[in-house]
Amino acid sequence: MAATLIKGAEVAAQIREELKQEVADLKAKHNIVPGLVTILVGEDPGSVSYVTAKQKTAHELGFYSVQDSQPPTISEADLLALIDKYNKDPKLHGILVQLPLPKSIDTNKVLYAIDPNKDVDAFHPVNVGRILIGQYAFLPCTPAGCQELIVRATGDPKGKELVVVGRSNIVGKPMVAIMIQKLPGANCTVTCVHTGTPKDKMIEHCRRADILVVAAGVPKYVQADWVKEGAVVIDVGVNRIGMTESGKAKLAGDVDFDTVKEKASFITPVPGGVGPMTITMLMKNTVMAAKLAAGLVKV
Amino acid sequence: MAATLIKGAEVAAQIREELKQEVADLKAKHNIVPGLVTILVGEDPGSVSYVTAKQKTAHELGFYSVQDSQPPTISEADLLALIDKYNKDPKLHGILVQLPLPKSIDTNKVLYAIDPNKDVDAFHPVNVGRILIGQYAFLPCTPAGCQELIVRATGDPKGKELVVVGRSNIVGKPMVAIMIQKLPGANCTVTCVHTGTPKDKMIEHCRRADILVVAAGVPKYVQADWVKEGAVVIDVGVNRIGMTESGKAKLAGDVDFDTVKEKASFITPVPGGVGPMTITMLMKNTVMAAKLAAGLVKV
Repeated sequence: MAATLIKGAEVAAQIREELKQEVADLKAKHNIVPGLVTILVGEDPGSVSYVTAKQKTAHELGFYSVQDSQPPTISEADLLALIDKYNKDPKLHGILVQLPLPKSIDTNKVLYAIDPNKDVDAFHPVNVGRILIGQYAFLPCTPAGCQELIVRATGDPKGKELVVVGRSNIVGKPMVAIMIQKLPGANCTVTCVHTGTPKDKMIEHCRRADILVVAAGVPKYVQADWVKEGAVVIDVGVNRIGMTESGKAKLAGDVDFDTVKEKASFITPVPGGVGPMTITMLMKNTVMAAKLAAGLVKV
Repeated sequence: MAATLIKGAEVAAQIREELKQEVADLKAKHNIVPGLVTILVGEDPGSVSYVTAKQKTAHELGFYSVQDSQPPTISEADLLALIDKYNKDPKLHGILVQLPLPKSIDTNKVLYAIDPNKDVDAFHPVNVGRILIGQYAFLPCTPAGCQELIVRATGDPKGKELVVVGRSNIVGKPMVAIMIQKLPGANCTVTCVHTGTPKDKMIEHCRRADILVVAAGVPKYVQADWVKEGAVVIDVGVNRIGMTESGKAKLAGDVDFDTVKEKASFITPVPGGVGPMTITMLMKNTVMAAKLAAGLVKV
């Protein structure tokens, strides 16, 4: 059996259509325009391309958006002052600091200076804690994108066996926190396997997963014989494994796609799976932040 | 095989001895005396007995301690003002609000008003988030007590299969967050089963656990045939199942102790297992809070 591809770009486009409608409603009914500032320090080409894409999407959705580019020489104090300014700006509901920051700057100090209610990346400990407690406004974009793909492509995962491979603060751990909750779109039995898990146990756990979320950071790590027939496989990995003939980076996920797709019922490709979801989830968080600021929702 | 009993009172006494030494050192080397205020609203006999025990232990360890008893009629605003006062008091490093609070008061609002660096119960979202991120000063007392029992009775659980039964915000979810970390005393492969887990899967997971932490809230829920030969069983349950002849409440854990003890290698009794640990962990957190305030440790 060949798996159905979960096309992230298509799901993301659908969510953006929903958001566009919500933004129009917020404007019409409450005179609210979601506002997003993206802060870019330096000119790393990857980072430039990310913030450009974020700004473009924000613009398309009808947001008020600000791109703030700072030189790589900006001091930590000046960056903190900038965050403080945006924290106080009522037109901006979401503040995104593009990572990585220069090594001279304490990344956590900067991220944790963002008002948690404007922290649309959901990296602030308050937001991480709210997620584990189950009373949250924002979810971090990548695991939230995984959850959306699971739910929209395969239905509510309630009661399913979900195995998360990896325990990063960006993906693995929040994925566990999200899917453990007694909430719609979650309520799974969750196991997290990681570098501390003996290999034989790792394979055993993967083999019994109804849903397998892989964020291991190792190209083609998960093999076909680790995957149960009919499982849903979400591949968060983005590994550069060489160059294409046209000179672009050749990407591979953390799953051995060509063989695993013969066993899974649904699978996300790399690229084109989880990747296209993240910016859209950031936009969703910004709309939520605008509603939070207006008191239309509470946490 | 009959399991070795993990005697919480003995482990707790050992930790208190260590803390007493640490308190003496803090006083001698840094002129720091850990300070704890316990706030009791109303006169619920259970709550009175808890805060009395906490005060007694704080006193024994050489803390500066304050017991603040308020009438059940205190307003939320007045209680928040009190918290604010203690947040600003440099002699008090830990603030504990005894729960439950009267229904007229928003418990979360009160708990979340405590300075996270004085939140020795570790219920504030900032502290919950720090735990999941793996950069924390405090752990919530009950799961921290479970971790101490596991480590001190059976050694570092690194690489073990740990199954948590239950997903409360007080025990199950923080237990998952603690034991998933790449840190000493943790680094387990963690599965959380709960009310959303089908019964057959629940039993299957329990059966493969090297370490089973049960916080289900159902008396004698976990049966002998759910437990692997040689497993370590930590029973967090405290259920009143009647009265003893002398008129005291008869307690049962969430584990069918009499049969499970024949299969486990280590087991905590109820009462006398996890229970005696919690106050000691609160004291440990208060010492940590004093060190935090003095800049001797950082998070």
